Amino acid sequence: MNIGIVGLGLIGGSIGLKLQKYNHIVYGLANNETNKQKALERKLANHVSCDPGILNECNLIILALPIRDLTNPSEEIIKAIPKDSILTDVGSIKEPIISIWEKLHPLFIGSHPMAGTEEKGVNAGYEELLKDAKWIITPTAKTNKNAISELSKLINSIGCEVCITSPKEHDQVLSLISHLPIFLAACLIETADIKENPSLLNLAHQLASSGFADTSRVGGGNPQLGLDLAINNQIYLLQAIQSFRQNITSIENLIIKKDWDGLLKKLNNSKESRIDFCN
Amino acid sequence: MNIGIVGLGLIGGSIGLKLQKYNHIVYGLANNETNKQKALERKLANHVSCDPGILNECNLIILALPIRDLTNPSEEIIKAIPKDSILTDVGSIKEPIISIWEKLHPLFIGSHPMAGTEEKGVNAGYEELLKDAKWIITPTAKTNKNAISELSKLINSIGCEVCITSPKEHDQVLSLISHLPIFLAACLIETADIKENPSLLNLAHQLASSGFADTSRVGGGNPQLGLDLAINNQIYLLQAIQSFRQNITSIENLIIKKDWDGLLKKLNNSKESRIDFCN
Repeated sequence: MNIGIVGLGLIGGSIGLKLQKYNHIVYGLANNETNKQKALERKLANHVSCDPGILNECNLIILALPIRDLTNPSEEIIKAIPKDSILTDVGSIKEPIISIWEKLHPLFIGSHPMAGTEEKGVNAGYEELLKDAKWIITPTAKTNKNAISELSKLINSIGCEVCITSPKEHDQVLSLISHLPIFLAACLIETADIKENPSLLNLAHQLASSGFADTSRVGGGNPQLGLDLAINNQIYLLQAIQSFRQNITSIENLIIKKDWDGLLKKLNNSKESRIDFCN
Repeated sequence: MNIGIVGLGLIGGSIGLKLQKYNHIVYGLANNETNKQKALERKLANHVSCDPGILNECNLIILALPIRDLTNPSEEIIKAIPKDSILTDVGSIKEPIISIWEKLHPLFIGSHPMAGTEEKGVNAGYEELLKDAKWIITPTAKTNKNAISELSKLINSIGCEVCITSPKEHDQVLSLISHLPIFLAACLIETADIKENPSLLNLAHQLASSGFADTSRVGGGNPQLGLDLAINNQIYLLQAIQSFRQNITSIENLIIKKDWDGLLKKLNNSKESRIDFCN
């Protein structure tokens, strides 16, 4: 099976490396000559071109583009995708992307590998990014059953675990476990960035250690990704932020009232609940 | 120099291992026979006892106790500390601890190594915890100059970097970079723990990956520590939470108003600011 990857950034590049390790033949579409050369140097795909025609012989194509390019697809790419190829994307939101691509391509199926770092671009991908990753497939009533089966086989063949859910449930759950953390982390950094007191800020810079680094990590990621998530998952993200704001206000009130039993109970509950998320 | 460590949990045990690596002789005080045996098995100190008398011959003593035991010190331990020994603690808050111990011991000097994990107890310590750690010393006007010098020498001798600031500035800065993250992380876990929708919660458990794990990590730590920080750093912690709440409300409003330029600016600022905290 010839596999096409549109976009060889963090996710596309990592998938390209992983697929080749498992002896798949990969055709990569780069967005400019510089990236094409870098992608070839880094061997992100067996063949790399800036000409969408490279997709012509592909049986399965992965759109590894930024969300905004998935929700505003280029005519050139749409035209280059063979009508009988299985097509998927890797975007962190699913409903807006699927609603567009299902109309454009009969064999489209939304998917999303759960992997990422703060890096982006053609230098960012690495094979280990996808090690033991869960890869979510989000079929709809219209999705071709054979496409689900073929995509699942491919995902399993590179050591990732397929997880099937609906686009809606994906976006709702991701708003809590993935999109909300980005905005909390960004807000934590903003709160600690006490520019009005330069000497204290300097001390904060010196003393911040692993706790701050970990809690703020996803706030140091690609700002465009955060923005695209807010634009495309607005309703669920706002629900998540509102729920969080109520919870932090509740903690604030416990501290104001010196309700230490109540506060300890909350901290105990969170510690215990976390085990099911991070085991 | 004979060094005493009172308490051989995560921090005390790690310091014991590190000091021995650099050929210091370490006397450890354990709180019960079981912990004494475990500490001896793990070689957390050269000598371990449950009898505070073990401190009698020590020139420098490190109180590696939970905050509540530092702010409510036992008479037995106070009596066992030689009057001419240099004494420090390792608590994550400084003003409340120093105000008590400065009255009890003329050669007391508050300090705080910037290191930690979510573990606690006699099995938790490991030498690498303190690798290249910053170790804050917080002298007051009353602090003996020789004590500062001797403690600094000891800290440098085990490869840690001394950082000197006031107790007040320590507590203020730590409220932002260390204590606030604990409560945000706990709140994130509470928000994602959607018990009212078991099937969605099950999906969240399956899909949570490194972003959620990192952002929530310090919310999975020792609940008693979080409580002690709230009790003893109440004013600064509340200021930090209030500032954070304003910032998250501001992000919420940007999303509601679809002010994408404003949101992107915030995300860009946070990404850029983070570099100074985590370089």
